Formats: sequence, structure tokens, C-alpha cells
Amino acid sequence: MALVVQKYGGSSLESADRIKRVAERIVATKKAGNRVVVVCSAMGDTTDELLDLAQQVNPVPPEREMDMLLTAGERISNALVAMAISALGAEAWSFTGSQAGVVTTSVHGNARIIDVTPSRVTEALEQGYIALVAGFQGVSQDTKDITTLGRGGSDTTAVAVAAALNADVCEIYSDVDGVYTADPRIVSNARKLDTIPYEEMLELAASGSKILHLRSVEYARRYGVPIQVRSSYSDNPGTTVTGSIEEIPVEQALITGVAHDRSEAKITVTGVPDHAGAAARIFRAVADAEIDIDMVLQNISNTTGRTDITFTLSKANGPKAVSELEKIKSELDFSAVLYDDHVGKVSLVGAGMRSHPGVTATFCEALAKAGVNIEIINTSEIRISVLIRDEQLDDAVRAIHEAFELGGDEEAVVYAGSGR
Amino acid sequence: MALVVQKYGGSSLESADRIKRVAERIVATKKAGNRVVVVCSAMGDTTDELLDLAQQVNPVPPEREMDMLLTAGERISNALVAMAISALGAEAWSFTGSQAGVVTTSVHGNARIIDVTPSRVTEALEQGYIALVAGFQGVSQDTKDITTLGRGGSDTTAVAVAAALNADVCEIYSDVDGVYTADPRIVSNARKLDTIPYEEMLELAASGSKILHLRSVEYARRYGVPIQVRSSYSDNPGTTVTGSIEEIPVEQALITGVAHDRSEAKITVTGVPDHAGAAARIFRAVADAEIDIDMVLQNISNTTGRTDITFTLSKANGPKAVSELEKIKSELDFSAVLYDDHVGKVSLVGAGMRSHPGVTATFCEALAKAGVNIEIINTSEIRISVLIRDEQLDDAVRAIHEAFELGGDEEAVVYAGSGR
Repeated sequence: MALVVQKYGGSSLESADRIKRVAERIVATKKAGNRVVVVCSAMGDTTDELLDLAQQVNPVPPEREMDMLLTAGERISNALVAMAISALGAEAWSFTGSQAGVVTTSVHGNARIIDVTPSRVTEALEQGYIALVAGFQGVSQDTKDITTLGRGGSDTTAVAVAAALNADVCEIYSDVDGVYTADPRIVSNARKLDTIPYEEMLELAASGSKILHLRSVEYARRYGVPIQVRSSYSDNPGTTVTGSIEEIPVEQALITGVAHDRSEAKITVTGVPDHAGAAARIFRAVADAEIDIDMVLQNISNTTGRTDITFTLSKANGPKAVSELEKIKSELDFSAVLYDDHVGKVSLVGAGMRSHPGVTATFCEALAKAGVNIEIINTSEIRISVLIRDEQLDDAVRAIHEAFELGGDEEAVVYAGSGR
Repeated sequence: MALVVQKYGGSSLESADRIKRVAERIVATKKAGNRVVVVCSAMGDTTDELLDLAQQVNPVPPEREMDMLLTAGERISNALVAMAISALGAEAWSFTGSQAGVVTTSVHGNARIIDVTPSRVTEALEQGYIALVAGFQGVSQDTKDITTLGRGGSDTTAVAVAAALNADVCEIYSDVDGVYTADPRIVSNARKLDTIPYEEMLELAASGSKILHLRSVEYARRYGVPIQVRSSYSDNPGTTVTGSIEEIPVEQALITGVAHDRSEAKITVTGVPDHAGAAARIFRAVADAEIDIDMVLQNISNTTGRTDITFTLSKANGPKAVSELEKIKSELDFSAVLYDDHVGKVSLVGAGMRSHPGVTATFCEALAKAGVNIEIINTSEIRISVLIRDEQLDDAVRAIHEAFELGGDEEAVVYAGSGR
């Protein structure tokens, strides 16, 4: 008897009708002879509504209370799904993150899972119940306060619970029916992948693919949990994330897909004195503000002994980073901080890069042919990413997808609302 | 430094603005040098909205999940109040019923508080925080599941927490500014009481007064917790519920007030064989359906050796009780079950009844003068209640209030929305 963990996203639970459909799938999985654990996100707009209420009473709400507030959303959706399940004649018990033994760090709003001790979930399964676990939330090991896991939290909860229960598979349901070679809304003949190794999925997630959150993939890789990405609106098999590129015979290693990201901005610090530690001082100032940076470019210093340092970061952190840098302007004696949020990032991912030379050349040629100018290049062992103008992003994705012949024969299926 | 427990009802928290006003009162209480613990109900319509969602997914939702669902409401309001407090520069920690140590029985939907172990609340107070406790909810001692306390649950939570913390006072805030000698919406010169002993408040609550729920008054009496009934829309002192009628010198004992109740229905079982155990069988059938009855009247049996048995119960239980009785009709061989939901109950409460003869006579004369016919009379040591036609209820309340000269000189204050 297999143990299946299913995770349903907010759009799959946004109304009573959708909740009933989700319940039907859950009960069908149980009737098929599986033990079933379900992780639910908050219903559709619940989180936004709660955030709005919070803003009305306090523009800068304390994080501890924000976690207390937001976690109510998953309790509501879980209880409703449990009710819908019992309406179908099956029995379910819902548990909060705390009840399910999801123990985390104390960082409110962005806690990390330290351990999962799902004794009550196991007990429910042994008694023949379907177990529901509230996603996105846990309890702090030190303070015993309620915490949230931050973006993509419910995916991480599902994978962590699957790992703790040694589940056979962790099914992640959303409105996208799998991992594609590119965004089907941009590339009409994008092909759905049957399977993809963890490393490649990590690179895609890090490169802007919204299908799975980076942390959940990292967690799945560490504990060897197979993830199945599926749509809650169809019975298509979806895409399985499992295995390592190390297991792929070199001659079979391929280019897997194209990812794009519109969420980044570019900061250029000009006229930086070209002495040791100058760049370090700049990145330290940004890091101290707890801002992650992505791509970095340092020009060769010009004759004046000064250089420009360019890096990218999330648009959300742009203004803060600029103000932090302005603070050290006089100390470091650089010329100016330039901010540009009209950039886009396009990335090519595939284990094949390790063994097939010329991938970078083909990549750049494709962009040149499409008239796309490259501002920064950044590569890993199995990824090439470039920063370009945002208005050229779609063209760039199509050009690269075409150049590496990643397309399929039939049109890709895109579901309503998969704009999420 | 006094320890004050404040409870705010749903209508006092129905919007962000009202939450801010509640926060101002809480912070003012803290700044006045008190240690403050706050118990909040769910915001205005939250509970109704959640119940509606539940109905949509399952007409008969499992009670365990219903409790998981409904308790989200108090988490939301508590977190928002905590945020509003911190916006005013004070600091607050909110706790779920479970975190606050509210341990209950396992009866979902109507659990009883077994014990309150508020160590985390005490810790918060010692660190100078305002402590917020989610009302209406607790955790089952046996199953560790989340439970709710049923009607008036938040009042009971407030009193129980006040008792466990040995608080100096438990302030119950709603849209009514105190306990009146009668409903001000019926009797224009109803007088607000400064204090009222527990026993009299119990009788008023049992007689239809909605100001405090019976269970919370019982709890306050058992643990000697002084309750102050106040309005969240004014600074009026309100009414203090404390002390025992035993402490009142007989010559000072008075008639306190008139209560009325429109929530009851009358059931008459006709042609009941007048043999021992017949009445018992009827009340057992009703009791086995977990239905409480209030007033009872058994006529003297007529010449046929048969009698009629009449009793009152909550309208909500009426249909169920009738069907239960129909089931034993043939077994018991009675004639018919008559159902009448156009009745009303008016009650006079006051310790003075014990020492002042003639109260019952004056009471009945007042009703007779008002042309009100009495269907059932029921009395306790300090209360007289009669069942009458519902359309005569307001007249009856005014007549009795007048006859016992309970009125004040000025018009009573009635707040918008105090129809609740």
C-alpha cells in the first residue's frame, strides 16, 4: 500500500466547488488503495485579504502576529477540505503545522524547517483516516510560537512531511500540468517533460520558473523524495522530479529547458576606486541589509583607476539596496548608484552542457540573430543565464528554445489562470 | 499593580476602525498602570461566513473539523488587535486557546473548561507585554484536538482566564453599557444597575437576558471573579457583577429587574394516562435527545383518568422534541403532541422576594391589569417567571417594571446595534 502526499495550491481551493473537486481526487486516491496525506495552501485570496486587514490596523505589523494571522488561512482551507472529504463518505483529520510536528527556526515570516515529527499524522493513517496538514506553517523549536515558512512554504511542507513519512511520492497540484521546456504562454510548441533530475529543476527554479519553489526542490533532493508536478484540473501524469544528473549517461545528457525571470532589477555602482576590498565593501553593505544578489559583473578598471560594479537583485529589494549604497558613497568615494528595473533574465538549463561543447556559442548566436543584446552572462555547470532588456525577453526565450530544438509536435496545453 | 482581564465581543471588532478603538482602550488601561490580558471574539461576521463555507462543502460537517474551522476566527481577530496595539507603541503577544493553556473536555462544539494553565500568559505579563488570548477555544485534555466552548464561549474564556490568573476584575465589553432593570428598548426609563449579586445575574441570564452567558456567570461565581459589564463605545462605569445575596441585609434586599425571553416554545402532550412513570417517560424521551426543558406544568388529571403535560424548551429544539415524542405515542398511549411557538416568558428577579411577601400577588395583579393571561408560572427563591402570549410580552415587561417601581428618572441610553 503506497503512501502518497498531495499538495494543493490556493487557486485549486479558491471556492467551495473547487474544494469539492479536490476532495474527490483525494478520496479517489484513497479508494485506489493508498494511504493519503494532504497539504493545503490557504484558499485563493484569503492571504491577500488578511494582509490587507493587517495593513489597515498597522502598516508595519509585528512579524510574530503576522504569522498568527496568516496561518489561520491554512487552518480554514484544511478544515473545509476535511469536511468535503467526509461528505464523500471518507474520513479525514486535519492538523495544524504544530500538531503535525513541523518544527522550525524562530525567524517569523521566513522560518526554516528543523525537523518533522508527524506522530499524530501517522496515528491518523494507522486508523485509516486521510490526514490533512496545514501548509506553510510550523512551530518554533525555541519559543513555541507559530511560524510561517515564507514563499513556496506549502510546497516545502509537503516535501518535508513526505520525507518524514518516507512517502512513495509527493504530488504537487497547481494549475500547471507539468514542467515545460519553456513557458507555454510564450512558446506555443513548448514540450512537457516526463521527468527531470533534481539539479536541473533547481536551476530552473533559481532561474525564474514558478512551478516549484527552490526550497522545496532542495529539500526533496536532500531526502530523495520524488516530486510529481500535476494539474488539479486534469488527470495528465505531469512531470516527475527525481534522480541526479550523475546517473545520466554522458551521451544521453541533453539540454532540458529555457526559463525566464522578470522579477529582477540591475544596480550599477560607477566610479568605484579600484583597490582591494572596494567590491567587498559594496556587497557587504547589501548583505547586511539581508538582500540576496544574483548576477555580478565587474568591469576591468579604466585608465582612471576606477571601475564599475554591476549586480542584479529582486526588484522588491531594489530601493532598499540603493539607499544602503548611498550611505557608503562618501566613505567608499564612488561616483553614483544607477538603478535599472527594465531588465529580464533568460536561462538555458541542461546536464548536456557538461559534455557538449559549443552550447554557449549556439546560445549567444541565437540571441544575436534575434537582435538581443547581452548585458551580463552568468553560468553554472548546467546553466547559462544572461541579462537582457525586459521587452526582448519573449523573443529571447523563443529564439533559444528554437535554436536547441526543444519543441514538441503538438501545441502545449495552457489552463485558464495559469498566469499565476 | 492591578491585573485586568478585558473581553471584547465580535461587534466591537467588526472592522479595522473598531479594532483600532479597542486597541486604544487596551493601551490606555496598560498605561494607567495595570497588567492587561485581553480575550477577543471573532470579528463581526467571520463566524457566519465560515459556517456558510462549511455548509457549502458539507451540510453536516464533522464537529472536529468545524472546531478547527471556527477557531481560525479568533486567531485572526487576536492577531489584528495585537498589531493595532503595537501600532500605538505598546507591545502585545497573542495566544491561541491551546497556547494559553485552556484545557477542555473533548465534546466538540460544546466543550467545558477543565483547567486553565496560563504559564505563557503569565510569562508575557512578567515581560511587560499585553497578553491576548483567543476566546471560545481550547484544547482537549484527552485527544489534544482543538475544541470550542459553544455559545457565550468567549465570555467563559475571559472569566476562566481571570480566575486562573487571580485577576482583580474581568471586564466584559459589548454594545450594551450595563445591566438594566429591563430591556431599555422596551422600557424607556429602565435603570442601569451599579452592582448585582451573582445569583441574581444567574437568574437574569437564565431568564433571557443576553448580556452575559449563563456559563460565564456560573464560572465567575464559583471562583469569585468580579465581572464588570461595560460598553466599548463609552467610558461609563457599567455594572459590576459580584457578591452574594447572602451578604445583603434582609431589610435592604430589593427587586432587581425584569427579564424577557422570546426564544422558547411550548409543547403540550394531551391525554396522557395518569399512571406513575408516564410523565417520567415523556421527559426521558426528550432528555435522551439531549434537549433541555425549562418550565413544566402538569394538570390535575380529569375524570377520564388522563392528564395533559406541558413544558417549554428552546424553539431551536422544538421540531426534534415533537418527533421524539411522536415515536413513543403508541407505547405511552397519549392523545396528541401540540406545538406552540408563539409564547414569551417574562421574569422578575430579586433577592427581596425572600423577605417581602406579596411579590407574587403584585406581579400577577400587574399582568391582570395589563390584560395579560398567564399560561404557566414557575418560581425560584429569588425569581418569578410566567409564560404568556408573545405579542403581549412588551406590555407585560412594562407593567411589571412599573408595578415594582424599578424605573429611573432619566431616559435609558441605547446604542446602535444593541439589538444583538
